[in-house]
Amino acid sequence: MESALIAELRRRIAPHPSVPLGIGDDAAVLRMAGIGECAVTVDMLMDGVDFRLGDTDPRRVGRKALAANLSDLAAMAARPMAGLVALALPRVGGLDLAVALYEGMLPLASQYGLAIAGGDTNSWDGPLAVSITLVGAVTSRGPLTRRGARPGDRIVVTGAFGGSLLGRHFEFEPRIDEALLLAERYTLHAGIDVSDGLSIDLGRLCQESGCGAEVEVAWIPIHDDAHRLAERLADGSTPLDHALADGEDFELVLAVPPEEADRMLAEQPLAVPLTAIGRFVDRPGLWRVEEGIAGPLAARGYEHHFT
Amino acid sequence: MESALIAELRRRIAPHPSVPLGIGDDAAVLRMAGIGECAVTVDMLMDGVDFRLGDTDPRRVGRKALAANLSDLAAMAARPMAGLVALALPRVGGLDLAVALYEGMLPLASQYGLAIAGGDTNSWDGPLAVSITLVGAVTSRGPLTRRGARPGDRIVVTGAFGGSLLGRHFEFEPRIDEALLLAERYTLHAGIDVSDGLSIDLGRLCQESGCGAEVEVAWIPIHDDAHRLAERLADGSTPLDHALADGEDFELVLAVPPEEADRMLAEQPLAVPLTAIGRFVDRPGLWRVEEGIAGPLAARGYEHHFT
Repeated sequence: MESALIAELRRRIAPHPSVPLGIGDDAAVLRMAGIGECAVTVDMLMDGVDFRLGDTDPRRVGRKALAANLSDLAAMAARPMAGLVALALPRVGGLDLAVALYEGMLPLASQYGLAIAGGDTNSWDGPLAVSITLVGAVTSRGPLTRRGARPGDRIVVTGAFGGSLLGRHFEFEPRIDEALLLAERYTLHAGIDVSDGLSIDLGRLCQESGCGAEVEVAWIPIHDDAHRLAERLADGSTPLDHALADGEDFELVLAVPPEEADRMLAEQPLAVPLTAIGRFVDRPGLWRVEEGIAGPLAARGYEHHFT
Repeated sequence: MESALIAELRRRIAPHPSVPLGIGDDAAVLRMAGIGECAVTVDMLMDGVDFRLGDTDPRRVGRKALAANLSDLAAMAARPMAGLVALALPRVGGLDLAVALYEGMLPLASQYGLAIAGGDTNSWDGPLAVSITLVGAVTSRGPLTRRGARPGDRIVVTGAFGGSLLGRHFEFEPRIDEALLLAERYTLHAGIDVSDGLSIDLGRLCQESGCGAEVEVAWIPIHDDAHRLAERLADGSTPLDHALADGEDFELVLAVPPEEADRMLAEQPLAVPLTAIGRFVDRPGLWRVEEGIAGPLAARGYEHHFT
């Protein structure tokens, strides 16, 4: 029953200075003193699409649902404040499932100073759906958005791409700390996190910024998982294909002015590598550059299809 | 496709001063200047539980999903600012369905000055689930919560109860304006909106406040729909039973100090009637008072059951 779950959560969730009332009201109350702007994001993960409950520990599902949302705050360079969790639970086993989902979320919330401030717990005859809303504080630098990339800016990425399906799509670390550090130390013109695929998400950033991008494909950091997955599938797909289209890397793609990019790449201020993979250009669209020759680059990745 | 829906929404959603960036980023950015606290609430409505898509216009579903969330902000006496909409859509007909849901939401959003600031649109093989998150501004009076009722306070309700299933559960008006006006003009100790049933929600308010409540059952305003539903069902249930347990009335239940309650009831400052239906008491639990004699009152209403 819902009241049993709320009682259990109250036992487990520590008090948090941003959430003076704790959980159990019609809405969560967040302290906003000193915060000029906040970033609010919602993400819904569903059984059979984002995970398969039949062969996944629900704690990993809970962690992933929260981590994917945190990655959206990272993309805005916002500091996590509070989260709300809405669950559509199957009727049988729902209470244990809800507790396990929270067990996956709570350590990650604690790691990033996020208060679990409330939620909505429901049961139905459908499969599990987890919808998480996060509120973050935008820093005094302002939000990082998708719309500030300018021709000449470098395309800088964190980490490596492809093959996340082999396990990284559950275990990834959202780039919160990285985004906050980079936004504080460097001028960033635009940013996005790679949830659906490097090429499709880079394309989205270009579209919002009203420019194009030339990608030096040889410079793309390809994850070992992309090599392993290409080998395992043996379907003619290359590791590069996986790096460009796989999705759920949850790395950052940034538009950085050239001198700032040079400084950033020389300093390498993060534990994870920063790599320039090309530049933003006037000409709209995505372009792959190989040995100095540019051709069209398909924006590939995961899109929800409905008709 | 998701991008087609976003393009369509951008055409339809007017710019809003609280949301400088509009939609289309990884998170919505909300202006918080001058706002000390905000209220954040999430509510998920699901096909087969909260509505039946097979025999309901999806515009009514969209309106209901948003109105139920607005009712939670009303319960906190918070002014609506921004909303995020997460959808799990069936694969076939999903785009038309999403557009119709938004067509139901947008007029209500506009009526209450709410910016639709973002969302997440997904498709799957499961039924429709709609999760809405709202952010509201808490007024300088502070949030109305469930935990301030004191013995001696009057139980004051807006409107009338029971039988909402006959249509009011789609057409109700969230008590936003009423809550803001009452919170401004009167001292309110606690409040809740009736989403699951008058008696169960009053019981929740009592539990959070650490007190009990005596309800003068003859004073409860019973809606005409409760009479009609009792007659139609002819199952021995009375109109009073429906008023106490039906749920989805989305009226307010308030704890008001006695002198304030007298003034409020004499002034009747709302278009909808305000009625005192009893008092909060030291003795925990719910009590029904009939002709001066008190007996236990069952807290009945809708609860999500899972095991």
